[in-house]
Amino acid sequence: MKVSAGNLLQQINYPSDLKQLKEEDLKQLSQELRQYIIDVVSVNGGHFGASLGVVELTVALHYVLNTPYDQLIWDVGHQAYGHKILTGRREIFDTNRVHGGISGFPKRAESEYDSFGVGHSSTSISAALGMAVASQYKGETDRQHVAVIGDGSMGAGLAFEALNHAGIENSNLLVILNDNNMSIDPNVGALKEYLTDISTSKQYNRFRDDIAKMLSKISSIGPDAFKMAQKIEKSIKGTLLKKSNFFEALKFRYFGPIDGHDVEHLVKVLQDLRDIPGPKLLHCVTVKGKGYALAEKDQTKWHAPGLFDKITGEIKKTVYDKPQPPKYQDVFGHTIIELAEKNPKIMGITPAMPSGCSLNLMMKAMPKRAFDVGIAEQHAVTFSAGLATQGLVPFCNIYSSFMQRAYDQVIHDVAIQKLNVVFCLDRAGLAGADGPTHHGAYDLAYMRCIPNMIVSAPMNEEELRNLMFTAQQDNMGPFVIRYPRGNGVMVDWQRPMKALPVGKGRKICDGEDVAILSIGAIGNEVVKAFTELNSEGYHPAHYDMRFVKPLDEALLHEVFTQFDKVITVEDGCLQGGMGSAVVEFMSDHNYRARVIRLGIPDQIIEHGEQPELWAECGYNAHSIAAQVRNIAVKRTTQTIAS
Amino acid sequence: MKVSAGNLLQQINYPSDLKQLKEEDLKQLSQELRQYIIDVVSVNGGHFGASLGVVELTVALHYVLNTPYDQLIWDVGHQAYGHKILTGRREIFDTNRVHGGISGFPKRAESEYDSFGVGHSSTSISAALGMAVASQYKGETDRQHVAVIGDGSMGAGLAFEALNHAGIENSNLLVILNDNNMSIDPNVGALKEYLTDISTSKQYNRFRDDIAKMLSKISSIGPDAFKMAQKIEKSIKGTLLKKSNFFEALKFRYFGPIDGHDVEHLVKVLQDLRDIPGPKLLHCVTVKGKGYALAEKDQTKWHAPGLFDKITGEIKKTVYDKPQPPKYQDVFGHTIIELAEKNPKIMGITPAMPSGCSLNLMMKAMPKRAFDVGIAEQHAVTFSAGLATQGLVPFCNIYSSFMQRAYDQVIHDVAIQKLNVVFCLDRAGLAGADGPTHHGAYDLAYMRCIPNMIVSAPMNEEELRNLMFTAQQDNMGPFVIRYPRGNGVMVDWQRPMKALPVGKGRKICDGEDVAILSIGAIGNEVVKAFTELNSEGYHPAHYDMRFVKPLDEALLHEVFTQFDKVITVEDGCLQGGMGSAVVEFMSDHNYRARVIRLGIPDQIIEHGEQPELWAECGYNAHSIAAQVRNIAVKRTTQTIAS
Repeated sequence: MKVSAGNLLQQINYPSDLKQLKEEDLKQLSQELRQYIIDVVSVNGGHFGASLGVVELTVALHYVLNTPYDQLIWDVGHQAYGHKILTGRREIFDTNRVHGGISGFPKRAESEYDSFGVGHSSTSISAALGMAVASQYKGETDRQHVAVIGDGSMGAGLAFEALNHAGIENSNLLVILNDNNMSIDPNVGALKEYLTDISTSKQYNRFRDDIAKMLSKISSIGPDAFKMAQKIEKSIKGTLLKKSNFFEALKFRYFGPIDGHDVEHLVKVLQDLRDIPGPKLLHCVTVKGKGYALAEKDQTKWHAPGLFDKITGEIKKTVYDKPQPPKYQDVFGHTIIELAEKNPKIMGITPAMPSGCSLNLMMKAMPKRAFDVGIAEQHAVTFSAGLATQGLVPFCNIYSSFMQRAYDQVIHDVAIQKLNVVFCLDRAGLAGADGPTHHGAYDLAYMRCIPNMIVSAPMNEEELRNLMFTAQQDNMGPFVIRYPRGNGVMVDWQRPMKALPVGKGRKICDGEDVAILSIGAIGNEVVKAFTELNSEGYHPAHYDMRFVKPLDEALLHEVFTQFDKVITVEDGCLQGGMGSAVVEFMSDHNYRARVIRLGIPDQIIEHGEQPELWAECGYNAHSIAAQVRNIAVKRTTQTIAS
Repeated sequence: MKVSAGNLLQQINYPSDLKQLKEEDLKQLSQELRQYIIDVVSVNGGHFGASLGVVELTVALHYVLNTPYDQLIWDVGHQAYGHKILTGRREIFDTNRVHGGISGFPKRAESEYDSFGVGHSSTSISAALGMAVASQYKGETDRQHVAVIGDGSMGAGLAFEALNHAGIENSNLLVILNDNNMSIDPNVGALKEYLTDISTSKQYNRFRDDIAKMLSKISSIGPDAFKMAQKIEKSIKGTLLKKSNFFEALKFRYFGPIDGHDVEHLVKVLQDLRDIPGPKLLHCVTVKGKGYALAEKDQTKWHAPGLFDKITGEIKKTVYDKPQPPKYQDVFGHTIIELAEKNPKIMGITPAMPSGCSLNLMMKAMPKRAFDVGIAEQHAVTFSAGLATQGLVPFCNIYSSFMQRAYDQVIHDVAIQKLNVVFCLDRAGLAGADGPTHHGAYDLAYMRCIPNMIVSAPMNEEELRNLMFTAQQDNMGPFVIRYPRGNGVMVDWQRPMKALPVGKGRKICDGEDVAILSIGAIGNEVVKAFTELNSEGYHPAHYDMRFVKPLDEALLHEVFTQFDKVITVEDGCLQGGMGSAVVEFMSDHNYRARVIRLGIPDQIIEHGEQPELWAECGYNAHSIAAQVRNIAVKRTTQTIAS
């Protein structure tokens, strides 16, 4: 559905058009930009609250900066919709996050205004510093480099490492702290409390001025007082003030906090800052969801609400005439509570994804046993390792692609010490509309090579529950359970749990001629493929591997003894993944079969709906069936010798 | 060589013995402990300066704490020799870092006093917090949890993430900041400058006291002054002081700085801190190498000096009667300068390993083009990505096992955007005496699964130079060059460089019956194996793959067409590594050969000399020869049909 932009916004194709406006028009433009985002997102979906919160900042930045020569890096990128609309993508903004359309995040290949591709948090300061240092080296002294980063992202280690380096480089870097007190969920951590303190304490904000005034008054009392006031002033200026602020301790010049919704003031401040050399931080206070009352009120819900009626605020949901299978994340969220009620050793940990992974349920039910540690995957893992040394069984839930952030901690702190940490990797496999940065493509490969790890993937909700039950038993060691974004396949999923034998797969159905080995939920595409295949007279066997590590060698001996045509199916990368483990086994045991490995090919997969991407990568039901037809012998009779 | 301990130290087998001493004896004990470390390390080797710097702290901690019930976590662990000596390992301390002996780092399997296994930096606060939260959950309110972390390690993102979380948990955690102004090389970064400021500024240390005194003096002047002084005091106390310190901004109670070499004072402070609840940080100023004058003076050199004459300080070096091959790291260090002199786009980046990877040469020769960014692997990679967006060619040199820290940055910031960053992974493969935490075992597997990556390994110095030359060419995209710890094989290595074709291996020698495919420097073990094999009448062929990605498919077609027995050899993990790529290729192209994959098996490999470990893992020259004998057909004549 095409949505039309307001009068001013209609004229803005690029920042050069924006610069033609008078400063007093920017408020109106901001309103139109905000309305346009509401209009388009309400009918097309996407991230919502973050972009509304930085409308004024976006307008001010493109008004003052000389983009794309000046370089503007949006951290994470959820908030960059306004930026996209003002930089040549207004008319195609309705293709946002659609297969073949524009990306939901800034992306270098999409526009020269997208200085750095993002998706994961906290990269912006490092990237901007690299650009600033490069400009300095090249003598481009007039070039501006601006990173816009939220207070949630600022808590991640990478952002701190970047500040720590930037503070000693005298390059032209402006960090804008977009302080809205939120990650996707409410932000947590000591730094957040600190920022809240300095944003809300008027006393603090005016402290420097006040102290100066008071000292001058004291001085007027008499010569003794004057002397002492001088001494105090010297003391304060010389030492304390320099260190009076977290960012100034890191050698940044700190400005603010200022109101991030006053566009004219923002323009003035940004103009002033342009001329100040060296690393500087502007603390901007904004409201996530600004201008859409419901979104301001429930910021987590309106982070990415799906389609909604922009007038009533009613979020549109497909109405089903019968119960639907749950999301995998909810199966996790409910099951961990069920397990924790019986096993007092269980703890839950999430790095800033309580509502994304449904650990919020446990945080509510058992607040002392469930922790949101902020955007801090590395810490989440090593903290879990610490808990595990004390005999507890932490379930550390991290999206598969975010787990890449804590790879060393998995190896160094958990696997080498063989600690009982359960890693639940949500959003494993192709993650859908979030695209390349969010696909959980590599986890089977990068986990499988680590000694002591157990690496598993459930085919459905019941299996997820059983794997969680299995993993929480004593002395299991490091245990990975990876499962996809989205819904499962079972309506009746809350069945009693049981322990599964570690490293054992299962036969889904007997067959002949061809064996299909699948891992995880993509196995349901194999099941679907069988409907067509069986009716056509093809009767392959289907095995669910369940575990990529340890590999079920007995099952594989059975398969390679009985079959000389094998198809492996995984929602993960082909290089080093499950199929790779299977051919390693085949080679090690000197079996000789034709093995066709289906999975994510060796390329960056763009965004789109999961089924679209599975089709593109050649492992949806249809593609699997086609592979079978290609190599199988068709039987005329419909009976199977099993 | 056995070394005897001093009179007091001889009596100390465990901390329980230490506790029998009077406080006034601790100074003497500290001297004896320091001497013992000097005596043993001078004849056995190992890390040196770090442990000398914390002798008094180690004695004081075990004197005051009730270890192992109280939990003491040493960050990195270079400094834990004194701890090992006082906790049951004095008599076996001379087996430190020897194959089969004790580990050079704290290790849970080795002693219950080693609360957490370490090796990589900055894990201690996360781990200690996990333990503290577990104790709190279990109601063990008397239990102490202490992390000892250096100022270098404090700059890493993981440490910051942990502080940010710890600040809002009211658990019993003491962080001791061991501030010696050093990583292995001099520490860098804004935080370091801040710590130096507050450690050296007497004004600042006494500021709180002074301000209180001055205000009381002002108050005595008269009623107006009194009122105003009160106002100032309130203002200062209410807002500014709370935020006057970096750590207090993060909700830690900050104590110090104190002299870390005054053992009696340390004991008193630690006793006091034991009774203060919540997160607290003690800032301890120490001197790395304390008590050994030469080590105090050149702290980088004496971080791990090797064997030395403890009296003269002369570092013992094997004297060779002819020139020896260089270390790979020095080949890197010299070659990057040679390349950078011709190519102005080249920049060098190291996260805190300038002397370890020899980038210090470039930092000296071209200070504006070479960066030590501190212990910050994540930032090092994303900063490099930022540089690369501006058309520069950063060489980011990171030890293979430390690269695990920046895995997401490699995928998310470099590979997805296909940026020209060259990753030089030093210490790839089994790293030797540093053991499991430092083995670069997984890089081929975890890099190979990422799209857009080029993954290579040189077999010798000349190849390393040629790969570096190749990688710095325009538009190469992400390029990994991994090479081992230690020396190469060529004396005459400074040859003219040339570009190698990407994704092309080479034939080392023709042969028959069996083909050996090796990657990287371990290929020289294959060459050695051939000496015995050829004399016995075995004549396998040898190919150097050079690239694991892209794989040389033409070469592999040739191999699998000509040979039905193939041996792959790599100094890396078998799961998902080079051999795995070869069997994937074999399977995909429906070749049928007997493939024997040699490499690091699926287990944690302990410490030892590299040749010992290669033998243990079955891929030294001898083992390779044995494998060939096992499968090959012996020829009686000595000619080869090539």
